[in-house]
Amino acid sequence: MAFMYLCSVRTLMDYDDPICALSTPPGVGALAMVRLTGAGCVERASPFFRFPGGRRLTSLQANETRYALFAEDDETIDEVMVTVYRPPHSYTGEEMVEITCHGSQYIQQRILQALIAAGIRTARPGEFTLRAFLNGRLDLARAEAVADLIAARSAAAHRLALSQLQGKVSEEIGRLREQLLHFAVMIELENDFGEEEVEFADREELIRLASGLLQRLHDLAATFREGNLMKHGIPVVIAGAPNTGKSTLLNTLVQEEKAIVSEIPGTTRDLIEESFQLDGFLFRFIDTAGLREDTHDRIEKIGIERTYKKLREATVILLVADWQQPPEEILRQAAAITGETDLSRQHLIPVINKCDTAPEEKLKELKSALGELPAPPVFISARTEQNISQLKARLKEVVHLSGGTDQEVIISNARHHEALLRAAGDIKRVVRGLRQGLSSDLVALDLRQAIHHLGEITGEITTDEILGNIFERFCIGK
Amino acid sequence: MAFMYLCSVRTLMDYDDPICALSTPPGVGALAMVRLTGAGCVERASPFFRFPGGRRLTSLQANETRYALFAEDDETIDEVMVTVYRPPHSYTGEEMVEITCHGSQYIQQRILQALIAAGIRTARPGEFTLRAFLNGRLDLARAEAVADLIAARSAAAHRLALSQLQGKVSEEIGRLREQLLHFAVMIELENDFGEEEVEFADREELIRLASGLLQRLHDLAATFREGNLMKHGIPVVIAGAPNTGKSTLLNTLVQEEKAIVSEIPGTTRDLIEESFQLDGFLFRFIDTAGLREDTHDRIEKIGIERTYKKLREATVILLVADWQQPPEEILRQAAAITGETDLSRQHLIPVINKCDTAPEEKLKELKSALGELPAPPVFISARTEQNISQLKARLKEVVHLSGGTDQEVIISNARHHEALLRAAGDIKRVVRGLRQGLSSDLVALDLRQAIHHLGEITGEITTDEILGNIFERFCIGK
Repeated sequence: MAFMYLCSVRTLMDYDDPICALSTPPGVGALAMVRLTGAGCVERASPFFRFPGGRRLTSLQANETRYALFAEDDETIDEVMVTVYRPPHSYTGEEMVEITCHGSQYIQQRILQALIAAGIRTARPGEFTLRAFLNGRLDLARAEAVADLIAARSAAAHRLALSQLQGKVSEEIGRLREQLLHFAVMIELENDFGEEEVEFADREELIRLASGLLQRLHDLAATFREGNLMKHGIPVVIAGAPNTGKSTLLNTLVQEEKAIVSEIPGTTRDLIEESFQLDGFLFRFIDTAGLREDTHDRIEKIGIERTYKKLREATVILLVADWQQPPEEILRQAAAITGETDLSRQHLIPVINKCDTAPEEKLKELKSALGELPAPPVFISARTEQNISQLKARLKEVVHLSGGTDQEVIISNARHHEALLRAAGDIKRVVRGLRQGLSSDLVALDLRQAIHHLGEITGEITTDEILGNIFERFCIGK
Repeated sequence: MAFMYLCSVRTLMDYDDPICALSTPPGVGALAMVRLTGAGCVERASPFFRFPGGRRLTSLQANETRYALFAEDDETIDEVMVTVYRPPHSYTGEEMVEITCHGSQYIQQRILQALIAAGIRTARPGEFTLRAFLNGRLDLARAEAVADLIAARSAAAHRLALSQLQGKVSEEIGRLREQLLHFAVMIELENDFGEEEVEFADREELIRLASGLLQRLHDLAATFREGNLMKHGIPVVIAGAPNTGKSTLLNTLVQEEKAIVSEIPGTTRDLIEESFQLDGFLFRFIDTAGLREDTHDRIEKIGIERTYKKLREATVILLVADWQQPPEEILRQAAAITGETDLSRQHLIPVINKCDTAPEEKLKELKSALGELPAPPVFISARTEQNISQLKARLKEVVHLSGGTDQEVIISNARHHEALLRAAGDIKRVVRGLRQGLSSDLVALDLRQAIHHLGEITGEITTDEILGNIFERFCIGK
């Protein structure tokens, strides 16, 4: 797909030819929408529409929605509603046509085929949003947020994508970039007067400014960890010996999610696999082999290695034990896990299961025997759902320990994160250069690099390759 | 679901409360549409919309589409496009709101949940179209065509549903009903003057008229067989001994279909299983166990019974044989099939396969040895696709033998078929009554029944039960 974007002789920036795509989810439904954008698309599509009273598509007002027959030659394909948008007041900033037809796959295909036969080519993934970017309707960070918004499955991911779409990240990057530009002006001034050995800008002041900017770049880049959890969900591993009720616990946690999703008729549960939401955060379960204490054969060892690998990917590890297990065994398992993981980033929650069948004093004994665990255990019964709410409260704590949502601007895009780290690296060199008394024109080089890297985030600076990589990940019709 | 329709104290006819539903296919896409209809729905939905410049939803013109934020309390859920329709110029004939949002499932659900929380209940399947019917925007036959149109997978099914939606069946039924009403007036006149023993209407003339109407009802009802094939596709069975290349033939016939469907990006192939289209007709393959000559054990016999059952369901039977099979065996198989089927309705096409490996003279010999088959065999190679076009030509003949598309009005709805047969039964009794010299008030009873039955087709006469049965089969949001 990247090839499709890159092999063209014209650059992506040049395109405004008419394109079309199905914009609603594939499949059968009551209605579906086919969208067109590009120079001349209204005129090109006009012959397909028959309006009552003999109007033509070209005579529709901007933002006017009307009933029409969509017909190819003399064959009526469907009764549709059609809306015309005129530049620059459209999603893409170009003229646009939106056709709402009946949601049969046959009709969707016939309409698209008719448009294609009229020389309106099919849109590439994300090409509508690409054009919105190229026509200045959205900057690049906001355009990227469109795909994130469509993919968002949790309140946290949705809130983040929407705030990014509405410009939160762009504004912050814009402010930073402006300050760097201002800083560059001061450096250049020093540069211009360099021969006269007049230092216009006080070097100490410049170092202070640059260090402040460096800190802000670091702070912003540091929000990526949280942004990533908000966007992709919090990876959870359920570890523990066989027959401790790991699958029952998983089902108990996930079942409510399934119930919530199926509340609204007509929506699907396709995407809900092993996940559930708490406080708007998505917790995603990672499947692992069980943990066994004594392993002698090679194959089991590979399984264990794989389990440890998964453990290291998890943000939360639920170590599930049966209350009948010897406490030493539970402590050994916890030690094994903490030895393989990094508890400064990861959270271990010991869970003692099947407590509905345990005598009170046994649990008391166990509790005191498990005092050395890195975190206090939760005593539950996955089967009877006893104390599940307490376990959920512990999971919520994790969200807030991992960052919460206090920051104003949160980075969730790996490309932005990388650009911020690069800009921070540049500014680090600026600070060092200033400290080492480097000439201002050398310092200015690094500074310009930093400005360049920030410009990549919002798309002031971009290439066909960057655009190709970003938009090929979009869905068709957006 | 029928229960949902029937248990209510109010009848379906009374409803105009605001309802909402997702109208685009379930799943993730670039865009999705949520629709609202019902008295006060614009006012009720208005608080959720924030327009640039402070406009309100209630101030939007009819058929005007505008950008807005959809927000619940102070939380923005999405950037949407929203259109308002005002009665009677809307699909349902009521006031309507159409919200086009980003196609994330999270957003779709949040918007629906917000509307539901505002007292706008979720629509039952087909409830938008039910209201269109109740508000006189569509008669019942046309309303039913909406569901057929959405389900149509072939050109034939689509053409049929669309012509029905545009009123072809309704008009024909309307004409018939009008003539019956006219006829009824004549009978009633005879009735009124009956005591004076004056026969206003000439009985012979009445019998001639009624017989003509009866013929038209029969002719129309007879189109149902063809309509059903157009709507649901032509069932095809591939029969034959094991290892004669039945699956290869199936794949050869189906593969092109898959290629056609995958031409348009963004559309799915979900519904294409074992089917392909020719001349706009869908041919659906029915899976059967193979045919074996000698069967001794019980289980195989059950398999054969099942195969014969499938054979009787098929419109087309492809009997596939290997050219190396003894001709007597092929003749025996053909005889077995014709013994179990009805070749006046069903079509047997003998297919000799693997002809790419057969010497010319062998095929000549086989051809003359198979002279007694009920239809001439097609000599093909499924593997090399030799003569597949010839086989397709034979399949096309079947379509045209089965009716073609000459009739102006074709019935494809089982409910209409049944009502026509009932009306025909009534008119048959009318004719008999007239012939037997029955008093005109008795004849008029049957006539009124016939009018009633035709009225059920277009919905002049209907009950909550009929409506419930029809609309519960619709998809949500239509």
